[in-house]
Amino acid sequence: MISVIILGSGNVAHYLFKALNKSVDISVIQWYSRNLKQIQEFKSVVSITDDISKLDKADIYILAISDDAISSLSEQLPFENRLVVHTSGSVGIHDLDKKLRRGVFYPLQTFSKDVDMDFKHVPFCLEALEKVDLELLKTLANAMDSPYYKINTEQRQTLHLAAVFVNNFTNQMYRIGHEISDIKNINFDILKPLILETAKKVQNISPYMAQTGPAMRNDKKTIKRHLKALDNSMHKDIYELLTKSIKQTHGKKL
Amino acid sequence: MISVIILGSGNVAHYLFKALNKSVDISVIQWYSRNLKQIQEFKSVVSITDDISKLDKADIYILAISDDAISSLSEQLPFENRLVVHTSGSVGIHDLDKKLRRGVFYPLQTFSKDVDMDFKHVPFCLEALEKVDLELLKTLANAMDSPYYKINTEQRQTLHLAAVFVNNFTNQMYRIGHEISDIKNINFDILKPLILETAKKVQNISPYMAQTGPAMRNDKKTIKRHLKALDNSMHKDIYELLTKSIKQTHGKKL
Repeated sequence: MISVIILGSGNVAHYLFKALNKSVDISVIQWYSRNLKQIQEFKSVVSITDDISKLDKADIYILAISDDAISSLSEQLPFENRLVVHTSGSVGIHDLDKKLRRGVFYPLQTFSKDVDMDFKHVPFCLEALEKVDLELLKTLANAMDSPYYKINTEQRQTLHLAAVFVNNFTNQMYRIGHEISDIKNINFDILKPLILETAKKVQNISPYMAQTGPAMRNDKKTIKRHLKALDNSMHKDIYELLTKSIKQTHGKKL
Repeated sequence: MISVIILGSGNVAHYLFKALNKSVDISVIQWYSRNLKQIQEFKSVVSITDDISKLDKADIYILAISDDAISSLSEQLPFENRLVVHTSGSVGIHDLDKKLRRGVFYPLQTFSKDVDMDFKHVPFCLEALEKVDLELLKTLANAMDSPYYKINTEQRQTLHLAAVFVNNFTNQMYRIGHEISDIKNINFDILKPLILETAKKVQNISPYMAQTGPAMRNDKKTIKRHLKALDNSMHKDIYELLTKSIKQTHGKKL
């Protein structure tokens, strides 16, 4: 049985509490938050505290807090030589105080407060300074039925950047689709199956192989008509740049 | 029982044949292709032909052919006053020869040759010049268990444009995510659950509400670090433009 203490009260902390608490191989023995109110509802199932000096002894401490707070909270921890991990995509492992055994337990996923996530769909990026700690993190991911990958800090920061493209920028493509169709009184629902299928397709084939459309075919007539139809200059700029990018990827003349 | 003849042999034609052939309320009585080889394998289940003068009589003729061929093929049809629909997102309804009863039966989805699609996830955009023909197209969509929407030519062309954003451009975001992670020897599989979840999220909440990340938070430190990490100038340009677009959408200072 691995004992865990969670620190933080955001979406990741909430997700981890749920996922870890469900596992028979893990005991979440305490939950710390600066702001006790945000975890108050869990006080009947786990010991909660807002006092850093009252942290119990555990096998793993998980700092699921904002990037900026990681370094200073790790300094404040009133113990040494215990395994402390953060859950950030961009903070280095050495940003944790060196009095600790240090590691990273980064879930590469987008969490919403009220959306339940299948644990199998939350891959963890693991990093630790000691081999024995890495093994402990693997056991932790296994206990949640989550896939995991050994990833160093540079790779993790790259993944965080790649995630901006496949998540934030993709979502902005959806937003623009929404804006464009709203203007013509078109129900955005019509586009939803296409959005889902586009994401499903690259689960099995590469994005390179999955590409279709006017830019990929270098269909100048359609591209010209689309640019003419766009009257928002930002939409036009994005259409032009991404058309150019697709052509470049697929070896068409720019 | 509605009798249907399919003309064309691309992905849409293949999908329609499968979907329509499965329905008990529809009979696909003939399949035409200029190139008979491409539909040869179906000759035991449907009458096939490459001779336009040998088309049988049917309730609906579906032209699932390339945009450029629609107008001329419709002229060559050896009959008048029968319902002929095309399946294109961008061709106008009046591009069909006026000797015919004209309509559009546009499936808003991305089709791959060997991927089986749940019919429920293929919404059809319907357009017809006569009310009775529109009703027939509704019956056709219903018989396939597919959702449908009455959409005029201008709206359909707008949807086709919106589809470029949510499908082709989104797929290019995946491609860039793939490129970025490949360089650092990171398995693209790690990003796949995030890709799927991003698409799932907007099935229930608007893309506006679903947005997260450094651009949305106006997190200048992270944006700066990401731009520094990108050494491909096209990736850099896209990062900058889409960050600007997200800021604009969410009312951040540019």
